Amino acid sequence: MRRIDLKRGLFVGRFNPFHLGHLMVVKEILAEENEVIIAIGSTQESHTLKNPFTAGERVWMIHESLKEAEISLDQVFVITIPDLFRNSIWIHHVRSYCPPFTRAYTNNNHTRRLFKEAGIDVKPTGVFNRTDFNGSKIRELMLEGSRWQKMVPKAVIKIIGTIDGIERIRNISKKTD
Amino acid sequence: MRRIDLKRGLFVGRFNPFHLGHLMVVKEILAEENEVIIAIGSTQESHTLKNPFTAGERVWMIHESLKEAEISLDQVFVITIPDLFRNSIWIHHVRSYCPPFTRAYTNNNHTRRLFKEAGIDVKPTGVFNRTDFNGSKIRELMLEGSRWQKMVPKAVIKIIGTIDGIERIRNISKKTD
Amino acid sequence: MRRIDLKRGLFVGRFNPFHLGHLMVVKEILAEENEVIIAIGSTQESHTLKNPFTAGERVWMIHESLKEAEISLDQVFVITIPDLFRNSIWIHHVRSYCPPFTRAYTNNNHTRRLFKEAGIDVKPTGVFNRTDFNGSKIRELMLEGSRWQKMVPKAVIKIIGTIDGIERIRNISKKTD
Amino acid sequence: MRRIDLKRGLFVGRFNPFHLGHLMVVKEILAEENEVIIAIGSTQESHTLKNPFTAGERVWMIHESLKEAEISLDQVFVITIPDLFRNSIWIHHVRSYCPPFTRAYTNNNHTRRLFKEAGIDVKPTGVFNRTDFNGSKIRELMLEGSRWQKMVPKAVIKIIGTIDGIERIRNISKKTD
Amino acid sequence: MRRIDLKRGLFVGRFNPFHLGHLMVVKEILAEENEVIIAIGSTQESHTLKNPFTAGERVWMIHESLKEAEISLDQVFVITIPDLFRNSIWIHHVRSYCPPFTRAYTNNNHTRRLFKEAGIDVKPTGVFNRTDFNGSKIRELMLEGSRWQKMVPKAVIKIIGTIDGIERIRNISKKTD
Amino acid sequence: MRRIDLKRGLFVGRFNPFHLGHLMVVKEILAEENEVIIAIGSTQESHTLKNPFTAGERVWMIHESLKEAEISLDQVFVITIPDLFRNSIWIHHVRSYCPPFTRAYTNNNHTRRLFKEAGIDVKPTGVFNRTDFNGSKIRELMLEGSRWQKMVPKAVIKIIGTIDGIERIRNISKKTD
Repeated sequence: MRRIDLKRGLFVGRFNPFHLGHLMVVKEILAEENEVIIAIGSTQESHTLKNPFTAGERVWMIHESLKEAEISLDQVFVITIPDLFRNSIWIHHVRSYCPPFTRAYTNNNHTRRLFKEAGIDVKPTGVFNRTDFNGSKIRELMLEGSRWQKMVPKAVIKIIGTIDGIERIRNISKKTD
Repeated sequence: MRRIDLKRGLFVGRFNPFHLGHLMVVKEILAEENEVIIAIGSTQESHTLKNPFTAGERVWMIHESLKEAEISLDQVFVITIPDLFRNSIWIHHVRSYCPPFTRAYTNNNHTRRLFKEAGIDVKPTGVFNRTDFNGSKIRELMLEGSRWQKMVPKAVIKIIGTIDGIERIRNISKKTD
Repeated sequence: MRRIDLKRGLFVGRFNPFHLGHLMVVKEILAEENEVIIAIGSTQESHTLKNPFTAGERVWMIHESLKEAEISLDQVFVITIPDLFRNSIWIHHVRSYCPPFTRAYTNNNHTRRLFKEAGIDVKPTGVFNRTDFNGSKIRELMLEGSRWQKMVPKAVIKIIGTIDGIERIRNISKKTD
Repeated sequence: MRRIDLKRGLFVGRFNPFHLGHLMVVKEILAEENEVIIAIGSTQESHTLKNPFTAGERVWMIHESLKEAEISLDQVFVITIPDLFRNSIWIHHVRSYCPPFTRAYTNNNHTRRLFKEAGIDVKPTGVFNRTDFNGSKIRELMLEGSRWQKMVPKAVIKIIGTIDGIERIRNISKKTD
Repeated sequence: MRRIDLKRGLFVGRFNPFHLGHLMVVKEILAEENEVIIAIGSTQESHTLKNPFTAGERVWMIHESLKEAEISLDQVFVITIPDLFRNSIWIHHVRSYCPPFTRAYTNNNHTRRLFKEAGIDVKPTGVFNRTDFNGSKIRELMLEGSRWQKMVPKAVIKIIGTIDGIERIRNISKKTD
Repeated sequence: MRRIDLKRGLFVGRFNPFHLGHLMVVKEILAEENEVIIAIGSTQESHTLKNPFTAGERVWMIHESLKEAEISLDQVFVITIPDLFRNSIWIHHVRSYCPPFTRAYTNNNHTRRLFKEAGIDVKPTGVFNRTDFNGSKIRELMLEGSRWQKMVPKAVIKIIGTIDGIERIRNISKKTD
């Protein structure tokens, strides 16, 4: 019978959108652990400049990108987690949405601290080129009409096309009071 | 390049726990569609008689059960959806957490009606033996100390053992005011 | 120029559905005050046995019923108020959704107490036949397939027909776990 | 018997305060539809620079302004709708608070997009002078002590006087940490 | 300088009302620890049969009862904690509202389990006569008009008199639909 | 028997952290009233630049600071109050968490207005040196690594050391998107 007590690494993000930097981290975690948990945060939010995509669109991007990269979903949990608006217990909230995990991976100082205060082991992710692969920069390029396509998997380009995502971001930015 | 406009069937439940009846429905949907979306509802709730397991425990049970049944996770979305406490728009809430889907599968009259009022195609699931495979009955048997194990995949038995789930359910039932 | 400091009476209810007893209270209040405020509570809820209709359906029933009764909407405020789940300050919540009012009308002991504790004048409504005109009784008759139609304005019958309301209530009651 | 399947146009705003531009839109909609639904959003908020007035004060301003303009309330629904903080399903939330409507009227790009994504017909409103009639500009003038009175119906001036609204806005702006 | 790393015992309850059994537990904890934390839960609720008193009324009862018993408030934290409606992380929520504590005291199986799952030391409280000192029984006696006064400190009788608490409970019970 | 109808003054703040200015206000209120209620607001928030400390840490700071200043906790209520996000009724929310009080003390224009609109007596606090004793300034100094220690009681320095508070604030400020 299959063992259930595998080593799992947790990767928390908002994935707006899922980009090549994220993909590198997934591969890095899978090189060290049996399985990876991709936890999508702020799933209640969409259609804002910071979180333009719905939870469903983000899940979809991740599934298609992993398949494109020939990573089997058998070793991946993709989990949608709404905000709790309670920093001091957010880590426990995340934990209640996930199967047991060995450690969390993050380069963010604030997130690392929250994991540490909750007594959870944290590891930095290998340094990828954050200048190129950066969610807020990608969203800015989308808004400006500049080239963002090289920073994301092809599947993400396709999905953003299907949902008319670039136009959505531009409409958000023209929001008047 | 891979197509992203696949046929997907939606299967909504609370999965407390995931049982053999659920597994049959998953197989049935995969026989008709390219992919299945297993949407876990009421994920904010746990440690109650109706929803004893956490969202993470339920996700874990589903992943392990599908692997045990040799169903590739590549064709399955497992999505965690908190309650919205707004029946009239709950279907739209669910939809915002999922990739596009062709139709929903359910035998529940109330859920079917909500899908219909939202203009979504609904199909009944093939009749399985609801007397044997029924969440509230399984939880009752767990509480009584009767045999519930034949109604769930082996992986579910293992996970419930790991988390000391039967004892948890008994403690819940002894809750005093 | 028109005066804005009119005498207004507040009438709080859930109006699931608006019935002839409610209509009598509206008339009674308009006989004593310049204007009536019909405050619809629990507007976030619908598709339950206690609150089967949406906020919009309830507003619609009230407007059409008042027109049918030839009561001008010029002297009526119809206001939709979500629950706050905070009994001790609910009255202040209601007040923040309404224009200034002189007093509240209710026959409910609990509601009367909340108004009193908040320092607001409360008046009982003239006794109408509560055996005939009673929301929970009407919903029960709808469920059983008995005659409920004599207890509500014709406009309400029409709207419930349009939204297939009786069938909705039956589907709710067949909700399985 | 009166028909209930009328043509209704939806007009969503925050109305802080209701101004002459809003009044023009109401007239424009009533010229094309049988009835207008004025849906007041963000009703849970008040006493902020963006939403200084309570839901009740805004309802009151609208009723009195329409009477001043000799528009019968018999053809107007004024509905108070709290925020849902879920952009992707906000339109469905609004819809659940309203009677059925034919189309929505808005000049806002973001709102128009949300209606379109929800499959609802949207029409731009006739261009009025947005430089003169603009909520945030009016609130700014109130704060500065400049002339804002020409931009709103007389009834709104009266109500703001009654509630000491200008002083309230100034107090809000002096909020210290 | 005073030490801040004292031994503290946590005592969680709803205290509707604070009774002599509660007082015994406070004394018991103070005999073993330097300080006691009295954590009042469900503080958002009041005016229901289960939680008739407001958070403020419950705090007030506790302060006055401790003074009556000549227990100095210098060694007592009285903390008001709203429900989170998330059993799996409720203990962490409670912890975020309290100063550090050594262990929790409870005789409730369900609560004990939640503490254990969160990795916190729990101790049973010495057995007091639960037949006499029991919140739901006291509330029942209040409703029936029987003698409840011997079960609570004199200060509690006085406060319940001041707020007309018995009449409030009776009004709640007469709540009609 | 002890009187329960004492004169109590209400002091609302966020206390991030409790500083010497706050301590002066407490002393000032105790000179005029029998008891002081220290109501800690925004208790659901922590680990942000505006509210770096948890509710529990803030309660702890206040208790230890009062003891250090030899103020008996017998005359002090320390109450934790979550935000309601409803300005118009926030005062009533605060009131429901407190024992009865005679008046509120504040120098904040906005808060004073909210108390006045709710019909509660408000008094300004004696002017202390707000340039020296100011929460946002103290947090800024902590972030910069400048001297903040002279502005707070010694107990606060000790607690911030114990929880590694300065490092926490720096981690928060380095939060990346």
